[in-house]
Amino acid sequence: MLVSGRRRLLTALLQAQKWPFQPSRDIRLVQFQAPHLVGPHFGLETGNGGGVINRNAFDSMLPKMMTQFLEQGEATLSVARRALGTQLPVLSRLEVTFLAPATWPDKVLCVGMNYVDHCKEQNMPVPMEPIIFSKFANSIVESYDEMVLPLESQDVDWEKGKHVKATDAMAHVAGFTMANDVSAHDWQMRHKGKQWLLGKTFDTFCPLGPALVTKDSVADPHNLKICCQVNGEVVQSSNTNQMVVKTEELTAWVSQFVTFYPGDVILTGTSPGVVVFRKSPVLLKKGDKVQCETEELGVVV
Amino acid sequence: MLVSGRRRLLTALLQAQKWPFQPSRDIRLVQFQAPHLVGPHFGLETGNGGGVINRNAFDSMLPKMMTQFLEQGEATLSVARRALGTQLPVLSRLEVTFLAPATWPDKVLCVGMNYVDHCKEQNMPVPMEPIIFSKFANSIVESYDEMVLPLESQDVDWEKGKHVKATDAMAHVAGFTMANDVSAHDWQMRHKGKQWLLGKTFDTFCPLGPALVTKDSVADPHNLKICCQVNGEVVQSSNTNQMVVKTEELTAWVSQFVTFYPGDVILTGTSPGVVVFRKSPVLLKKGDKVQCETEELGVVV
Repeated sequence: MLVSGRRRLLTALLQAQKWPFQPSRDIRLVQFQAPHLVGPHFGLETGNGGGVINRNAFDSMLPKMMTQFLEQGEATLSVARRALGTQLPVLSRLEVTFLAPATWPDKVLCVGMNYVDHCKEQNMPVPMEPIIFSKFANSIVESYDEMVLPLESQDVDWEKGKHVKATDAMAHVAGFTMANDVSAHDWQMRHKGKQWLLGKTFDTFCPLGPALVTKDSVADPHNLKICCQVNGEVVQSSNTNQMVVKTEELTAWVSQFVTFYPGDVILTGTSPGVVVFRKSPVLLKKGDKVQCETEELGVVV
Repeated sequence: MLVSGRRRLLTALLQAQKWPFQPSRDIRLVQFQAPHLVGPHFGLETGNGGGVINRNAFDSMLPKMMTQFLEQGEATLSVARRALGTQLPVLSRLEVTFLAPATWPDKVLCVGMNYVDHCKEQNMPVPMEPIIFSKFANSIVESYDEMVLPLESQDVDWEKGKHVKATDAMAHVAGFTMANDVSAHDWQMRHKGKQWLLGKTFDTFCPLGPALVTKDSVADPHNLKICCQVNGEVVQSSNTNQMVVKTEELTAWVSQFVTFYPGDVILTGTSPGVVVFRKSPVLLKKGDKVQCETEELGVVV
């Protein structure tokens, strides 16, 4: 919907009153749409659960899509940060629709059995090396209304990288966000060949977002509470300190095989409570409300 | 390298003499580069092993990349075909570098154990339903100089498709090309979780091309000889009539899970002779020359 510039400004100022901007060092990058804006826009979330600054209104030269932004590398971050130092109108969350922070990445890599407590619940030994599988980009959505769970935290990669050393790996990671690695476990496990791909990559099976929280905005990505609720009941609860292979080693390890490009996504693992391993498994049904949250990163529903 | 228009024309005409154009109903779409052209171009191969018509020189409005061309759907084919009805200069194969016909597809899907004779050599029952795994786009190359084999024929998808019926499936298939599904079998099979992804998706592990042969140019895609040679010795030899699940059913089946987009690729299966199943397995070493060929489609090296 197109509205006049005046109306747009007025709306924005009204929202600014309702959602007063608190200066913050946190950089939470988002892609969003709003009724008064044409197409996707690039913005900043003003804290976990806060409103959105339309970064494109502040600087029309800035890309409108996250991948383009990431392709420009570290230097653009200071440009994004500048918007947080000024008094800018903030759009209410009710006024915007968040898009996933990576809409068409080149790769979505996932790591199986990467939480110590998740291995324990299956009575399985901790793997000696990461079990890597994939989803296709079509599985990514910003919100969804169907299907089975697990919970993941996730890295979004920043620069091209091949044969990256663990000590250099964080230079290739832009930041962290929240993902729900939805699975149709019957398709994942009970079919010949036992390839997990199909059960994991149905359209909409990778809700992602809402923000890409830059790495310097997260105190310790390997010490964050994570939890997943279904219809208000906590079904998964853990901490990223349970991760077997941490972000640095994981990024380095996978870069032996593939080159990373800006916007690539790694789902770093699932915590305990996955439906099929529960004593009384309850599968999701249409209409169930699933909410996954990682401390500092945000909530994906 | 930029050369003058006159030089370019002269070169092209000389090539036209060396590679006289034979009118053909075959449409063999290629992406290529040449020293006198800036960036990738879109063209037509004048038959299996023939020269290349620069389609962008004929019509500057035509896209330069295959995916853009496929996005425009069936209508653009008649535009491409028009170039075959006129006397146009033909570039020699020695003068061009072929790019893979799908350079950055959204998805590369692969089917495991989809050749009856390949199942027999493993003493395995024919699967009741397709075993689907994936490669990432980074694995695609137009030529390569390393690693292990299998041989594949392959579809490149044409239109968006979800929940496609087998009877409608060919409307979503643009045509056929040749792929080599290179594997590092140690990574594919012998690791916990047994996900085939990593062993299959090393950078350069999916040589593809040279042409996308449109479906109406192939008499019967399910009756084509296929073969693979290593250093001149035939190591795999079969026929696409050994395919368990044919193109139509395969496209329909996979579209239950994911939406197809223009340029998506399905590697439809491997024929017998795969290194690890040979009585005396010989692994590829650096410098070995691998050549895979499908009748009518072409050779990928």
